[in-house]
Amino acid sequence: MCGVVGLHAPENGKLSYYIFYALLALQHRGQESCGITVRGRDFVTEKGMGQVNEVFNFEKLNGLKGEAGIGHVRYSTTGESELFNAQPFVVRHSHGTIAIAHNGNIVNAEELREKLKAAGQAFVSTTDTEVIAHLIVREYLRTGDMVEAISMSMRKLVGSYSLVLLTDDALIGVRDPLGIRPLSMGRMGKSGVIFASETVAFDVINAEFERDVKPGEIVVVSEEGVHSHRPYKLPRRAHCMFEYVYFSRPDSVLNGIPVYEVREKLGMLMAEEDDTEADLVTPIPDSAIPFALGYSRAKGVPYREGLIRNRYVGRTFILPSQQARELAVKLKLNPLVRQLSGKRVVLFDDSIVRGTTSRRIISLLRGAGAKEVHMRVGCPPIRSPCMLGIDMPTRSELIAGGRSVEEIRRIIGADTLRYTSLEALVKAIGLRESELCLGCITGRYPVEIARYQQLRLPVYMEHGQA
Amino acid sequence: MCGVVGLHAPENGKLSYYIFYALLALQHRGQESCGITVRGRDFVTEKGMGQVNEVFNFEKLNGLKGEAGIGHVRYSTTGESELFNAQPFVVRHSHGTIAIAHNGNIVNAEELREKLKAAGQAFVSTTDTEVIAHLIVREYLRTGDMVEAISMSMRKLVGSYSLVLLTDDALIGVRDPLGIRPLSMGRMGKSGVIFASETVAFDVINAEFERDVKPGEIVVVSEEGVHSHRPYKLPRRAHCMFEYVYFSRPDSVLNGIPVYEVREKLGMLMAEEDDTEADLVTPIPDSAIPFALGYSRAKGVPYREGLIRNRYVGRTFILPSQQARELAVKLKLNPLVRQLSGKRVVLFDDSIVRGTTSRRIISLLRGAGAKEVHMRVGCPPIRSPCMLGIDMPTRSELIAGGRSVEEIRRIIGADTLRYTSLEALVKAIGLRESELCLGCITGRYPVEIARYQQLRLPVYMEHGQA
Amino acid sequence: MCGVVGLHAPENGKLSYYIFYALLALQHRGQESCGITVRGRDFVTEKGMGQVNEVFNFEKLNGLKGEAGIGHVRYSTTGESELFNAQPFVVRHSHGTIAIAHNGNIVNAEELREKLKAAGQAFVSTTDTEVIAHLIVREYLRTGDMVEAISMSMRKLVGSYSLVLLTDDALIGVRDPLGIRPLSMGRMGKSGVIFASETVAFDVINAEFERDVKPGEIVVVSEEGVHSHRPYKLPRRAHCMFEYVYFSRPDSVLNGIPVYEVREKLGMLMAEEDDTEADLVTPIPDSAIPFALGYSRAKGVPYREGLIRNRYVGRTFILPSQQARELAVKLKLNPLVRQLSGKRVVLFDDSIVRGTTSRRIISLLRGAGAKEVHMRVGCPPIRSPCMLGIDMPTRSELIAGGRSVEEIRRIIGADTLRYTSLEALVKAIGLRESELCLGCITGRYPVEIARYQQLRLPVYMEHGQA
Amino acid sequence: MCGVVGLHAPENGKLSYYIFYALLALQHRGQESCGITVRGRDFVTEKGMGQVNEVFNFEKLNGLKGEAGIGHVRYSTTGESELFNAQPFVVRHSHGTIAIAHNGNIVNAEELREKLKAAGQAFVSTTDTEVIAHLIVREYLRTGDMVEAISMSMRKLVGSYSLVLLTDDALIGVRDPLGIRPLSMGRMGKSGVIFASETVAFDVINAEFERDVKPGEIVVVSEEGVHSHRPYKLPRRAHCMFEYVYFSRPDSVLNGIPVYEVREKLGMLMAEEDDTEADLVTPIPDSAIPFALGYSRAKGVPYREGLIRNRYVGRTFILPSQQARELAVKLKLNPLVRQLSGKRVVLFDDSIVRGTTSRRIISLLRGAGAKEVHMRVGCPPIRSPCMLGIDMPTRSELIAGGRSVEEIRRIIGADTLRYTSLEALVKAIGLRESELCLGCITGRYPVEIARYQQLRLPVYMEHGQA
Repeated sequence: MCGVVGLHAPENGKLSYYIFYALLALQHRGQESCGITVRGRDFVTEKGMGQVNEVFNFEKLNGLKGEAGIGHVRYSTTGESELFNAQPFVVRHSHGTIAIAHNGNIVNAEELREKLKAAGQAFVSTTDTEVIAHLIVREYLRTGDMVEAISMSMRKLVGSYSLVLLTDDALIGVRDPLGIRPLSMGRMGKSGVIFASETVAFDVINAEFERDVKPGEIVVVSEEGVHSHRPYKLPRRAHCMFEYVYFSRPDSVLNGIPVYEVREKLGMLMAEEDDTEADLVTPIPDSAIPFALGYSRAKGVPYREGLIRNRYVGRTFILPSQQARELAVKLKLNPLVRQLSGKRVVLFDDSIVRGTTSRRIISLLRGAGAKEVHMRVGCPPIRSPCMLGIDMPTRSELIAGGRSVEEIRRIIGADTLRYTSLEALVKAIGLRESELCLGCITGRYPVEIARYQQLRLPVYMEHGQA
Repeated sequence: MCGVVGLHAPENGKLSYYIFYALLALQHRGQESCGITVRGRDFVTEKGMGQVNEVFNFEKLNGLKGEAGIGHVRYSTTGESELFNAQPFVVRHSHGTIAIAHNGNIVNAEELREKLKAAGQAFVSTTDTEVIAHLIVREYLRTGDMVEAISMSMRKLVGSYSLVLLTDDALIGVRDPLGIRPLSMGRMGKSGVIFASETVAFDVINAEFERDVKPGEIVVVSEEGVHSHRPYKLPRRAHCMFEYVYFSRPDSVLNGIPVYEVREKLGMLMAEEDDTEADLVTPIPDSAIPFALGYSRAKGVPYREGLIRNRYVGRTFILPSQQARELAVKLKLNPLVRQLSGKRVVLFDDSIVRGTTSRRIISLLRGAGAKEVHMRVGCPPIRSPCMLGIDMPTRSELIAGGRSVEEIRRIIGADTLRYTSLEALVKAIGLRESELCLGCITGRYPVEIARYQQLRLPVYMEHGQA
Repeated sequence: MCGVVGLHAPENGKLSYYIFYALLALQHRGQESCGITVRGRDFVTEKGMGQVNEVFNFEKLNGLKGEAGIGHVRYSTTGESELFNAQPFVVRHSHGTIAIAHNGNIVNAEELREKLKAAGQAFVSTTDTEVIAHLIVREYLRTGDMVEAISMSMRKLVGSYSLVLLTDDALIGVRDPLGIRPLSMGRMGKSGVIFASETVAFDVINAEFERDVKPGEIVVVSEEGVHSHRPYKLPRRAHCMFEYVYFSRPDSVLNGIPVYEVREKLGMLMAEEDDTEADLVTPIPDSAIPFALGYSRAKGVPYREGLIRNRYVGRTFILPSQQARELAVKLKLNPLVRQLSGKRVVLFDDSIVRGTTSRRIISLLRGAGAKEVHMRVGCPPIRSPCMLGIDMPTRSELIAGGRSVEEIRRIIGADTLRYTSLEALVKAIGLRESELCLGCITGRYPVEIARYQQLRLPVYMEHGQA
Repeated sequence: MCGVVGLHAPENGKLSYYIFYALLALQHRGQESCGITVRGRDFVTEKGMGQVNEVFNFEKLNGLKGEAGIGHVRYSTTGESELFNAQPFVVRHSHGTIAIAHNGNIVNAEELREKLKAAGQAFVSTTDTEVIAHLIVREYLRTGDMVEAISMSMRKLVGSYSLVLLTDDALIGVRDPLGIRPLSMGRMGKSGVIFASETVAFDVINAEFERDVKPGEIVVVSEEGVHSHRPYKLPRRAHCMFEYVYFSRPDSVLNGIPVYEVREKLGMLMAEEDDTEADLVTPIPDSAIPFALGYSRAKGVPYREGLIRNRYVGRTFILPSQQARELAVKLKLNPLVRQLSGKRVVLFDDSIVRGTTSRRIISLLRGAGAKEVHMRVGCPPIRSPCMLGIDMPTRSELIAGGRSVEEIRRIIGADTLRYTSLEALVKAIGLRESELCLGCITGRYPVEIARYQQLRLPVYMEHGQA
């Protein structure tokens, strides 16, 4: 869970500001740390713990002058959350400098790290990103060709990665061969080129979306223009379904597909299968709103706001007692009694991970007088943890880990519970099943995980077989 | 624009936490400074600049032990925003101590301050609250009766005020004779009594709403129980209409009327009068959502989310250039092109004050491809500044200050513009016109403002004539 | 323990900077909070917790524009150390505004506060300063004459006070009738007049010392020049001996007497009475250096640095164990083994309060090989707590509280221990005994303490008998 | 200008605290950043910008549990002062982990960095320390023997370096073959071994000094005891003379020689050569005190404190005007007029670098009435910048760069000016000239600088000729 931005804009005097605004638009992808590296006469980096707004100010942005730059927001997936792991990661080698920002998860990072160590490489952090950086630098020093170096590295990397790289003469966008994490490309002004994890980053700075970086593609932007290379062309793709369902912003367009419309459609498809009679449908705000609106439209049941979110409750500390923890959800979400009292309520959420919040919210609705609560979920049960870049709990913490839908319904206390089917999910997204990563639902990952994670999971397809 | 809380809960060991949670629920009423005073063996106060979450922590709350306490969140209406003006305001006099927190605006504060000064009273701040405190203390020292002292002070105070007072043996809730600002009363646990500006403060701590404090009422809570006094009973009320339209949280119930339903109804009434044909209705989030939902329901035009709000953009600094200021609104609100493109859009907002934001958002929608933009506003034109506690610009800055609706439409660039009529507003709230303060719409204030503000405004009714 | 500054400099555009520098020079008098109030078109105040350097910056100082101003550094003598007790204290009354900064301790503050409360005055802090302010304001409102108001207030105030006041048209310096705390007056530039607790404040800004404010004097500085009033002329004075011995900076000149020379002379007088044979004399740095130099010179015994102070150890946190506490003194003071080993050492300190540090340092010296340690103290035994402005522990915590010199010697572990005699102290300062406050040594205070403190102490002289 | 500490204390449960206290004692060697790495089950590091007291707290120290650890304080000699350059520097390689802290300056760092880059090594910082780390790691991976790896690296490193290294099973202290920077070794408790830049670090934690690490020595401390290796034994040494004159704390013992005594002796030797008649000698505090005391003793002229230092003036911001800059020195040092007025003053300083401060202080003394000011300096003129670890300005900024003593005297405004002679300096330290680094005085450095710095300087001796 990270977001990346890359901007090549030699004629723009305020490059760092545009990267900053773009990172602000991607803040939902990571709030733990952030950073920007620009290349002017030298490479200059500013990074820090906290949100984009907290880390940067006029003074720092003014100090980041250059012709091209990359930025990163990070949500720590490892326990350690040190500044030393913040990105971009900058490496100076014999033929120049390279800065790198990464969104994704390298499944065989440990194996590669050990191989690199065995080859004499020393490491200063515990991140995947350092592994990627050294792989690329080594190949580059061997071949003298950056595209070749990246291509060779891609052969070795197993997992998900959307990268932006800043070299001495180019800005480079790279996407893994399966296109698991998103990466889009846009144009800004006369000669500016921008990469970003999501298209919302283009919107805020009036850049224009051009196209997605293709799975396995390397796009090099320099004074000599934009050049595309595609050393990998696999017969399948594996776009993360969770980006559509929850993680990306609703106003982004991913792989050509507007996220908002996928969510609306999931609500509509759910409505088609659903014969439950209800007085209203209400979302858990904000993420489930388009699902509930789609459901309402398709089924004719009125859409109502049943829960009001307190926008000021962020990382509030809570009195450490059972009673207080129960109150915690109420600090964030307050039920509208007059909308709910005596009503048969369809409650929509995008997904259920642990189930704890669902249970508490259903209990809130009942406390507000709801006569029935019918839980509807915008994606199939999450049964396996993600290994490819989404932060999820272990299988035993997933409520759907080893339970039937009926068991889950009982635990969360709903009158009925319906999940979106895999077919409906695929249909709503509008891609073929073989173009999606559905690992967290099916346990069948598009890359060979078991070997690296020492898990016994059914292997779906081996990376590189193509 | 402030929020107040008072809690009498001698058997609750964690009183300060409950006040803290209640203030969190009222945070929307003021984010500049906040404070809590509790009465245990002594009066202890903690206050600071910033939001409730930033000012308080476990250590500070644990230091606030007591049987009763009051809290305050403040939005500075004056230019100065010093800690010294933060509330509660605590005064120690010959017969004890009094702490006071205030929501409202005293119109004749300067006159009273001068009178008190002339009588020998010295002042250490520039707040209305200190004026109120000294008025009450002086009357109390004269009469020895706190209820009498408050009653006498109420005779002198012109303006709006919802007060919570903490004395050596009581917690007291007071509301001005016209009931301009809200103040509700609830029960918590076996013996706890709570006052708060809005009922949402009760919800988060599982307190139960009992009733509103009546206009002109003084409610005294002590070991001897709850006693009500009502020295003032005017033939009219003047509940602020803007609390219903914009300022209060939608999940609050004000003067017995659920705010959410008023807003929905305003949308419905607008729909009834509106013959414009449109493809969809969309709100400016979050405040205009219930208006737009009501409109959609009544008119049958589909409700759509057309603008996505970036939750992480708070007080972001913006590059000081024209271009950057234009981008600023996009950082906060991103239009959903696919929902809007080629569509005839009804855009709903709760109110228009300066008009600048409306103009920018309409321009955004057109940029996203909207074929027509029909602006609908949930209350009548705001033509006069509020003198009674809502922070508004001067008349000349109000876009409706001296302009016709057609002129406003042209400035903001809408295809059509319709405001809610005064009649519809009164109908939606469900009170009589004589029970509302409509000063900002009509220029006729329920208390005599002109005398104190040296303005020539048509006087509606003199305070105290009853 | 506080420091005050007052500056009238209408032609100086950077008045606040000069007050800031002067406060820096007085920082040793209080590090807990500080503040500056200036009078330009209005009264503007900045205060905060912490040292002068931490609280102020260019931006704040630039915001403090005016013709005259006062400043304060504070060392909290009460447990509470809130910003609300920080000075200057500003009061707005019917005839204007008054700001006040105070160094000293009002013995009958509680009595006066109760009387003022009984007369209807309410209080917002727990400081003596607010008592002084309201006394003066009340008299001023009664008489309309500020000098008269201050004179009348002085009749009521029992204790020590050096005050600087800022009124709408004057800067006023006031010193209590016994002159307990210091207050000097200087000239700056063509028309500037400055007051400060110590003359070092003049040195740093190139102001010229003119004279001390006389005990009981009121000096009024305004556009009409400098006018002196002296409503009180007592037959005696009571300059605090501890200012000479420890509290004031060595480079200050107090009541016409250079502090440094008093300390040197105390060392010399000690030498005259001392027949102990030693190899060297060494001070506890920094305060005891002039004592030891004087001793060395008079006795012919070599002066050596035996302890090196670590300048970077401030408020360091120490591991909470016995061993660690023992190490704590070593973090601050490291013995020079080569200077001390095998030597008979005279160790000089300015005073002994609790004795704990003396014991630890003597133990350090022995650990460094000192053959003998002869402790010499620059003032007589401190047997009673100060009631007049110096922060001291209670009598039972004072090592000399109820103990003989021999008992103290045994506790601190010295081979011999000699205190300066009262006669020597008086001689070194060069004033008559009746011109000094020796309360902490003799228990006979120059003002009647017992009545207010409910202690049975021998009364030396009643304030006001003159 | 840095300080290092290494502690092996497997039986001590509070290892990080002892490193913290030791760093506090070395704080004068660097205040910009600091850090501690410990090896427990894993390597854990805490570092930050600021002083030891600011960066560490109980929580952080408690998190640093282990059997051995190293610490560092840093004074940035490069313009950039980023956290990323803070030490210790930790590298994970194929056979384990190594952490390193460094005091000194590698003259051929750029050359080595380029060679390492050419061999495929990538760099993440711009520090010498990373160069040293990679050199050692590479040799270690090649040979599998850490002592051999360090020895081989020492052959390549030109410059000054005192290192502490933490490996998976040992703590290692290393000193460059000329012993330019200090490094001492001590014992703590039953089995603890400590290294530190100065012996004061031992004093504060009751460790006992054992011996200095020898030039070119590698001391390995592990569970198997302490083992010394000395791959390099040059016929000469080159202990930095500036450590004795200014940089080290006076209470340290360097290379067996107490710093305090060197400084005293320098004062005495100056006195012997000096026929100037004077009334008193006074130091610029604190560093010049022992010089002045020595001078006083040898010459019989009285020692006096003529300047009082304000301990609270640290990094104070100064009004940016000429007048204010002149006042700046007075904020820090206030002359004691009564000691100086009408007197012939010998003013002692340890050294003169730029001369600006000397000029201002002499002007201060004259302003305080000094009749004559005779400047005496504790070391010869500094004519060349240090290339080996002391932060100094360029040659053109050094007042003695191209000027005669008479010219310098005129610039600083002294009546007479005498520098210590090279012979006296050598004599006071008590080593032979060939055992000292006198590069900044003679321009003849003990290692070949010119080749690496592209300067034309007379070469004294080539490193490695032995």
